[in-house]
Amino acid sequence: MENVLPGLRIEPLRPKDLAAAQAHLDDLTKPRGSLGRLEELARRLFAMGQGSLPLSVSPALMLTVAGDHGVAAQGVSPFPQAVTRQMVQNFLTGGAAVNVLCRTAGMELRVVDAGCAGGPFPAHEMLLDRRLGDGTADISLGPAMSRESCLKGLQMGAALAVEAADQGCRCLGVGEMGIANSTAATAVYCALLGLEPEDVAGPGAGSDPAMVRHKAGIVRQALAVNAALLEASDPPGVLAAVGGFELAIMSGIMLGAAARRLPVLVDGFISSAAYAAALALCPALADYAVLSHASAEPGHSRALAHLQGARPGEGQPLLDLGMRLGEGTGAALAYQLLRSAAAVFNEMATFAAAGVSSSTPRHGASAVEAGAGPGTAC
Amino acid sequence: MENVLPGLRIEPLRPKDLAAAQAHLDDLTKPRGSLGRLEELARRLFAMGQGSLPLSVSPALMLTVAGDHGVAAQGVSPFPQAVTRQMVQNFLTGGAAVNVLCRTAGMELRVVDAGCAGGPFPAHEMLLDRRLGDGTADISLGPAMSRESCLKGLQMGAALAVEAADQGCRCLGVGEMGIANSTAATAVYCALLGLEPEDVAGPGAGSDPAMVRHKAGIVRQALAVNAALLEASDPPGVLAAVGGFELAIMSGIMLGAAARRLPVLVDGFISSAAYAAALALCPALADYAVLSHASAEPGHSRALAHLQGARPGEGQPLLDLGMRLGEGTGAALAYQLLRSAAAVFNEMATFAAAGVSSSTPRHGASAVEAGAGPGTAC
Repeated sequence: MENVLPGLRIEPLRPKDLAAAQAHLDDLTKPRGSLGRLEELARRLFAMGQGSLPLSVSPALMLTVAGDHGVAAQGVSPFPQAVTRQMVQNFLTGGAAVNVLCRTAGMELRVVDAGCAGGPFPAHEMLLDRRLGDGTADISLGPAMSRESCLKGLQMGAALAVEAADQGCRCLGVGEMGIANSTAATAVYCALLGLEPEDVAGPGAGSDPAMVRHKAGIVRQALAVNAALLEASDPPGVLAAVGGFELAIMSGIMLGAAARRLPVLVDGFISSAAYAAALALCPALADYAVLSHASAEPGHSRALAHLQGARPGEGQPLLDLGMRLGEGTGAALAYQLLRSAAAVFNEMATFAAAGVSSSTPRHGASAVEAGAGPGTAC
Repeated sequence: MENVLPGLRIEPLRPKDLAAAQAHLDDLTKPRGSLGRLEELARRLFAMGQGSLPLSVSPALMLTVAGDHGVAAQGVSPFPQAVTRQMVQNFLTGGAAVNVLCRTAGMELRVVDAGCAGGPFPAHEMLLDRRLGDGTADISLGPAMSRESCLKGLQMGAALAVEAADQGCRCLGVGEMGIANSTAATAVYCALLGLEPEDVAGPGAGSDPAMVRHKAGIVRQALAVNAALLEASDPPGVLAAVGGFELAIMSGIMLGAAARRLPVLVDGFISSAAYAAALALCPALADYAVLSHASAEPGHSRALAHLQGARPGEGQPLLDLGMRLGEGTGAALAYQLLRSAAAVFNEMATFAAAGVSSSTPRHGASAVEAGAGPGTAC
């Protein structure tokens, strides 16, 4: 990662912090382990903060990154490309699903223009201009962007996360908007994880089966046309060839968040493709990433099954609600669980303080230690 | 239900309201159906309110109902019976998991003493005294309580919900505390749903495999001893014979909530047993009940698979986080999803208002109408 994002380094969580967190959780007035994945989240938050208390994930910032895709010209989405721009406008006026869910969950929302077609938007307090171009080139005909653009996107994304951390942000969410970006995400999964387009391509925003078959064919063509640029061991090369402006920036945000020890909520199918690329750059990212929800997009679970680096069990999405919207909607819902996990850790009484009998024998924190891999710095 | 809870009646949700809700959801700026189960929740909330807007689930009240169980004497839990009382005290001082999760979610919490051993508690603003006795009798030796006590519990529970509705409450959550109540819940599932004790009994608060086998044997004995009292078609008889004070009151709360058109969040393994009994009394309850989370208790999914009355897909719990704590913890987490669903319905922009292109052809609300059963009043 050093050569891609100079000065940034992600430290794996320390097993001793995870163990100390579990020891505290085991002292709280509940049967051991009975809060399931909330305990996993609390352990990780404690270790991200290296033991500083109270655990806090507030203030939290959602970054919804928007970009356009030349491949939209190939008829891979039921919506016209203009919808990317229209939806950015909708974000700025507060009417989209991610606006509503961020308000409900208590997250601030900023919209990042990574390169929507049609030129820059007028300045707006919610909008961050990080344009890498006016939509990517059509991946079915050649690379989406230059390697330089992709590296710039990764760096701008990381800088966004670092700036947020500097301003006191304690948790980042990452979502996206971009007509045809499920096609790009499918290509990224295939190139990074060795999957077949037909196994990953799905209906996205609502394609019918014929359009899904067409989409898989377009992805296959994109992989063939760009074959010389696609090395699974070179995530920036993959993102440049078949990814998208928003994907590059999203990968950068995730890496920057982890470098600053912030939890980062990864939204759904598209966001997980950016995560797959970021994870390939630095496997220690897994310690800081929280997969928010299992997308109704059928390729999502197949792709996640191929991701490396997460501790067993912690690589599964928190929610499974049949959602397939993106924008950060699943991440905003999952933020409420993260907040709940922090509160449990901070606020619950111990058996001793509450005068509640604990009948089970103590056996230290061996379960945590067994579950926590050693990890390696990138 | 009329002869058990005089004056209360549960109206099934009207298909026309569900269809109108879906038509509105389809006008919002997102691909159709892309918010998955949030859309299901919003449809149901709209139909519960018979179209009144905005949808609201606030203020919300969690009722955590506590009771003791004579069968605790049979060594079916790793915790001593005194823990029920100690945990009620913990609820009242705000240190338990359900306190923390209700605070985080924005729910008010009240603790209902349905009959903890050791006599009444001193008065406390959070405590509601609805004692049916000083712990139930041991179900492995005879009935837990008289039929009269059970009917009184159902009526007191329904009255609690009706009072809450009268005071402006817009959503109820139901949870519990009671050492050994997973044994009683297992017996209730077996008696109502024709399941085998070995298929339903699980570790509860942390029993080892030997204790789980012992627990299944105790349940088998309870079902044999009380055989003459157990008719699946007579839920009050089942609750009286092998249930518990808190289970009877919880069933009553659920029915009372539905009779007043309030959504009711059913917590986990134990709460679902009370739900199974209430549902057997009035299948229309399914329209108002939201199963909060899939318990890590292995019998939970087996029991839920046998429940009748829910619309397809809507009978599945919203969350699956490996939790097995009870108290209402899962219901408090799920409340955040319900709140999110209401906000989406109320606050999202329509395609027309936001100037966003909707490319998909309109086909009315036929999907909803096909999914919504006709329902029958009880």
